[in-house]
Amino acid sequence: MPGVGPKMAERIALYLMRSEETDNIVRAIEEAREHLHRCTLCGTFTESDPCQRCTDVARDKRLLCVVEEIADLEALERSGVFHGLYHLLGGVLSPLDGIGPRQLRIEPLVERLRKPGVSEVILATNPTVEGEATATYLTQIIQPLGQRVTRLAYGLPSGLALEYADELTLTRAFEGRKEV
Amino acid sequence: MPGVGPKMAERIALYLMRSEETDNIVRAIEEAREHLHRCTLCGTFTESDPCQRCTDVARDKRLLCVVEEIADLEALERSGVFHGLYHLLGGVLSPLDGIGPRQLRIEPLVERLRKPGVSEVILATNPTVEGEATATYLTQIIQPLGQRVTRLAYGLPSGLALEYADELTLTRAFEGRKEV
Repeated sequence: MPGVGPKMAERIALYLMRSEETDNIVRAIEEAREHLHRCTLCGTFTESDPCQRCTDVARDKRLLCVVEEIADLEALERSGVFHGLYHLLGGVLSPLDGIGPRQLRIEPLVERLRKPGVSEVILATNPTVEGEATATYLTQIIQPLGQRVTRLAYGLPSGLALEYADELTLTRAFEGRKEV
Repeated sequence: MPGVGPKMAERIALYLMRSEETDNIVRAIEEAREHLHRCTLCGTFTESDPCQRCTDVARDKRLLCVVEEIADLEALERSGVFHGLYHLLGGVLSPLDGIGPRQLRIEPLVERLRKPGVSEVILATNPTVEGEATATYLTQIIQPLGQRVTRLAYGLPSGLALEYADELTLTRAFEGRKEV
């Protein structure tokens, strides 16, 4: 399991052997596996399909934000800046690891965009080499479908002094400068 | 002296007492104090006035980048993204510390902009509360002078996963999103 080393694994194993909670834990995992499925629209785990977020009438269905993983979606939700729909890719293109377009949820994305409703697709992949490459690939596929395609801004993060910013970040902050 | 604690101060003092280099060090400091002055244009230390950078014919004199301190200027120079002129403020507005407009090099900035030549002023103060306030203040003063006023882009720094970005940075990256 991710983040669990040999020592911690031993501690967990011994806990599960002697705890009175073990039956409940087993049942909870079984139930989750049985009842939680991926939402056929956004790709997050849900009991209902489509999920609550995808059917929430308070959310702006003209905006579709494409993210790599659930953790990215949760980070955006915490910030409260976005009130549209999401689409989970389930990762990024990484040919060396055998992850191509077919291993990601790109086909379901194209299907969603072929139906009317969404007017802007926001590519919110991470600012890494793989995230960039994936955004570029998605742009080529999505742009012909007619929606406006946007990308999160690059630049200085709040609080980081120029002095400590890396060169690529400074270059992008400079190139992306805006008229006040 | 900044960054020097009591123990280090003792070590330096003992070194200066016994080293044969001490006379040279003293002379170097005296000479620097005697020959180095602030460039009346950009505000960096220089032997000639205006400094080499301000008179460099290879630099684009239509662009003027306003920074807080020399360290910010050096960071931008290292990134190689900017080839215009600089203007050092010597700090940021900080009323609680008694630093108002008169304690910064704002008057020399206005004087520079009153003369023809500069077409764009890039406000490159840090993305901190004080840096922001200073940029806003400068905008009010500079905009009437007619030059284009721009600000460095805010957003995701290169390599930072959305998951670990703070909320303000995510908000700005979202609000500043650009059409691909």
